[in-house]
Amino acid sequence: MNADFVNPFIGGLLNVLETMAQTKLTPGKPKRKQSDIAKGDVSGLIGMVGPDVRGSMSITFDESLALTIMERMVGERPEKLDAEVGDMVGEVTNMICGNAKRDLAERGYEFGMATPIVVSGKQHTISHQVDGAKIILPFMCDEGLAHLEICFDK
Amino acid sequence: MNADFVNPFIGGLLNVLETMAQTKLTPGKPKRKQSDIAKGDVSGLIGMVGPDVRGSMSITFDESLALTIMERMVGERPEKLDAEVGDMVGEVTNMICGNAKRDLAERGYEFGMATPIVVSGKQHTISHQVDGAKIILPFMCDEGLAHLEICFDK
Repeated sequence: MNADFVNPFIGGLLNVLETMAQTKLTPGKPKRKQSDIAKGDVSGLIGMVGPDVRGSMSITFDESLALTIMERMVGERPEKLDAEVGDMVGEVTNMICGNAKRDLAERGYEFGMATPIVVSGKQHTISHQVDGAKIILPFMCDEGLAHLEICFDK
Repeated sequence: MNADFVNPFIGGLLNVLETMAQTKLTPGKPKRKQSDIAKGDVSGLIGMVGPDVRGSMSITFDESLALTIMERMVGERPEKLDAEVGDMVGEVTNMICGNAKRDLAERGYEFGMATPIVVSGKQHTISHQVDGAKIILPFMCDEGLAHLEICFDK
């Protein structure tokens, strides 16, 4: 998997959070090891299926960061990771993947997006089951960590 | 969503666990409410994308049941939900969805499967983000509970 494939997802994440929630994330060092796993409190996951490629993407937030994003979007900080925060994470997941889908289609890589799934649970871990490359990208800001993971089965 | 759509997934789950792990599950009462959520300790999730339909499926296990399945498959009970248990849950997810994909293709419903994702974390919850029907099916056995959830965006 080359940078052409990963950058549209990164661009989508940075753009969505800055536009929707005035939140600037700083990308950390990408990890490629199969043993590395993303850990967090609320995650959005989505599957991708194209004629030549299958894969999955996840975005995982610390609780503090998810609550801050929600606060900046709706003006009030939720007390905990409730259904509205889950819906927001699902929507952000859809937007990041939709952004990448458009960018990659312009370069000849076509795929369809499944519907997003949101997982909530203190310090859960996510393991994408693919034979191909897995890229985990950490993102930092004062309010907490996010992890973007992109995997394709080729 | 009618029974034609759901039954191939149920058949896949029952068949896979009985064949691979000599484990018989008893189906409970299906739930259709949007507010119902599956809760468990390890889950396999997979996205589905077809020309006319998008959706997602998840299978969620209690820790005790996941460890028992693993024990029956490999002859030794893992001490905890480790990477091997995760791989088994990913494989079971793939097989259930593959079973349903074949059955539904024969009836004219075509979809492609994304790659599975496995989530681990004590008592995490899963929320499928679809506009269409969501079906949660509980399954029981002496070793613990499983929840199968099937959702399509139409």
